[in-house]
Amino acid sequence: MSTPQSAYRTVDAEGVRAYVAKLPHLAARLGGNPADWTIREVSDGNLNMVFLAHGPNGGLCLKQALPHVRVDPSWKMPLDRTFFEASYLREVFNYVPDLTTECLHFDPEQFILIVESLAGYTVLRTALMNGTAPEQSAAHVGLFVARSTFHTSLFAYSFEKIMDQRILFARNQTLTRITVDLVLTDPYIPHPRNHWAETELTAIVADIRSNQTMKTRVDELRLKFLSNPQALLHGDLHTGSVMATQSDTRVIDGEFATYGPIGFDIGLFMANLFLSLAAQETIEKTSLQIRMIEKFWISFESEFLKLWMTTSKNPDPSTHYYEEDSSSKNSSANKKKFIQTIFQDALGYCATEIIRRIIGYAHVADFSALKDHNKIADRKKTVLLFAKNLLIHRNSAKSLEDVFEIFFQNIIPFKENNL
Amino acid sequence: MSTPQSAYRTVDAEGVRAYVAKLPHLAARLGGNPADWTIREVSDGNLNMVFLAHGPNGGLCLKQALPHVRVDPSWKMPLDRTFFEASYLREVFNYVPDLTTECLHFDPEQFILIVESLAGYTVLRTALMNGTAPEQSAAHVGLFVARSTFHTSLFAYSFEKIMDQRILFARNQTLTRITVDLVLTDPYIPHPRNHWAETELTAIVADIRSNQTMKTRVDELRLKFLSNPQALLHGDLHTGSVMATQSDTRVIDGEFATYGPIGFDIGLFMANLFLSLAAQETIEKTSLQIRMIEKFWISFESEFLKLWMTTSKNPDPSTHYYEEDSSSKNSSANKKKFIQTIFQDALGYCATEIIRRIIGYAHVADFSALKDHNKIADRKKTVLLFAKNLLIHRNSAKSLEDVFEIFFQNIIPFKENNL
Repeated sequence: MSTPQSAYRTVDAEGVRAYVAKLPHLAARLGGNPADWTIREVSDGNLNMVFLAHGPNGGLCLKQALPHVRVDPSWKMPLDRTFFEASYLREVFNYVPDLTTECLHFDPEQFILIVESLAGYTVLRTALMNGTAPEQSAAHVGLFVARSTFHTSLFAYSFEKIMDQRILFARNQTLTRITVDLVLTDPYIPHPRNHWAETELTAIVADIRSNQTMKTRVDELRLKFLSNPQALLHGDLHTGSVMATQSDTRVIDGEFATYGPIGFDIGLFMANLFLSLAAQETIEKTSLQIRMIEKFWISFESEFLKLWMTTSKNPDPSTHYYEEDSSSKNSSANKKKFIQTIFQDALGYCATEIIRRIIGYAHVADFSALKDHNKIADRKKTVLLFAKNLLIHRNSAKSLEDVFEIFFQNIIPFKENNL
Repeated sequence: MSTPQSAYRTVDAEGVRAYVAKLPHLAARLGGNPADWTIREVSDGNLNMVFLAHGPNGGLCLKQALPHVRVDPSWKMPLDRTFFEASYLREVFNYVPDLTTECLHFDPEQFILIVESLAGYTVLRTALMNGTAPEQSAAHVGLFVARSTFHTSLFAYSFEKIMDQRILFARNQTLTRITVDLVLTDPYIPHPRNHWAETELTAIVADIRSNQTMKTRVDELRLKFLSNPQALLHGDLHTGSVMATQSDTRVIDGEFATYGPIGFDIGLFMANLFLSLAAQETIEKTSLQIRMIEKFWISFESEFLKLWMTTSKNPDPSTHYYEEDSSSKNSSANKKKFIQTIFQDALGYCATEIIRRIIGYAHVADFSALKDHNKIADRKKTVLLFAKNLLIHRNSAKSLEDVFEIFFQNIIPFKENNL
């Protein structure tokens, strides 16, 4: 989309000031004199430039795609990902207005997206590392996934509308390629993008790569990711894509948006809570992260079922799935069975997300809170073994209790004598 | 795509003559003087006008979309279906040049598609009714499905190419709507498009519609049809979409082309062979149709596996699915397991195709060969009960032998005393 002749220019803080000043409805949101606005660069993700602008009346967040990966300028990347983030926001904002940010402006030439500023919110991953994460935020993310996926699925609308959306998001191939490679392919083969500092992990990696069942499971998950467009996914729903206060939660960074299996969004978020759990000094069955995983799933499950049971019936009978006779004692039994398949998918994607965050290209910050090298290595071994066993046994894990049991079975007692 | 201002005009036989005369490379295929060409209208399907043109050098087949269903002018329909048929031919001709017809010309304004004429070929359904169907044609159709689906699947190419194709065919919504409604929705609810002359069937229809397991199975199949784009499907692969001589077989009429589960194409073709079988005066375990179903599936299964095992390895490792260690004794075991899931899907779609051809909108001609009303009713009961039991038991039907057993269990002995 960008050519050498295009008008695209990377903006800096002063560029942001000038850019917003020319947009009256956005300048009014900041208020006062543009010269007095505070503009801060807060780029945090791997891909884009992000600025926060504040004035006397309020704040804005401006995001601009770079023609390369922000943290690796040699990795070239088309600019259109911001278009897909804007498209995702415009679609899901209809269903989750209080759980994400509104798209206030999208510039298809500069690939600039402007949303409301989330000043006062903390990145959930940071809050988890600080021990200040609001437990309720996980339930909010569960609502976000339930509403954003249900309303973009064949259960809510005739297939024509869903296919039109799929057509749009099937063009988001650059970022889908990142997911396919970094999450679902590279960690299972020798690849220069993989890395891990802890030599203690190397034997487990070799074991994972040589395990035929593991390879088959990962193939199933990659194939399903690419050929089961159940709903519009966020596509990168880790704890760094969630901003929270004690009472309010917003999901951001939807540039990986793609149609895919609903369990993918669920699995990624679960995985990042498990990674946070593994990075705690002490791990208990009552740890905050355990409670958050439970709240997240229960919230998703009950909201998705509620929407399915109560959304006013579409006049198109082909949209009626898994209905029961009204005389049936359990009129939601078939719908619950379908939701259980989402749970199974989620466990698989949870495992692949954990594995790629430990041995793949993009790791998570959580473990840096543990200072002792041996403890870090032990905990990474724990989650890696957990992920491996979860993947192999996911069909027999029927509930979160089963999943937690697998997790705790893989905890390696911290060897104090190693200190 | 067509507006009152557009240049679109329905052509008649003389219009075909004038149209082809203006296209030098096609006129040369016919040869001689346009005034001497023989032009015949041979419209046979429900949707389009079809003409055969012959001259001293050869023949052409011209197909034009009408702005309505050919057999029901009150049923309005956009013209672009011919575009999708042309697009389908252009894609699959690369892989099955000797099993379909080449797209020689497509006119996006007149929605005219021209392919080589298949003079001397017989519609397979007609040949089956005449008892002259070449057994080998079923094996050819098996090759057609294997090659056209494998090479348009994620097993053959990186997902970007597959997603681009999905984007194109996801626009074929008018004909996909026909499949969703006529094949996968209407027969299971009271709908004015459904009809059957044999009052003996009414009780079975009521039974099918009130059976909760049936309804759930049909929902699964409809959901899978719309959300599992494994490969580019023909989408309407009944025995009227196949033209055959004793040695050669061509699949035609790909206007329903859509990305979907491979089992859909397989199930439709199987279903139409079962319908033909049920319409024979005498039915035996060695009947031609039984042998053709076996040849069809074995041909598909072995060709698909062969392509998967031998196609030169794509350099993109994300396209490598279900591989085994080369040291493994059975290096194709996982691929065979995947193909078995196609078989299970096929049985489901086979059942829904049979049901809709007996009680839905568009019936099949096969039964008209049976003259006795009671026999027709008995045989329709047979296939309807077979389809019902196949749908309910498809997960336990592991092979065609199991399927044939269900079929023969449902044969109703012909009551001679009814004559």
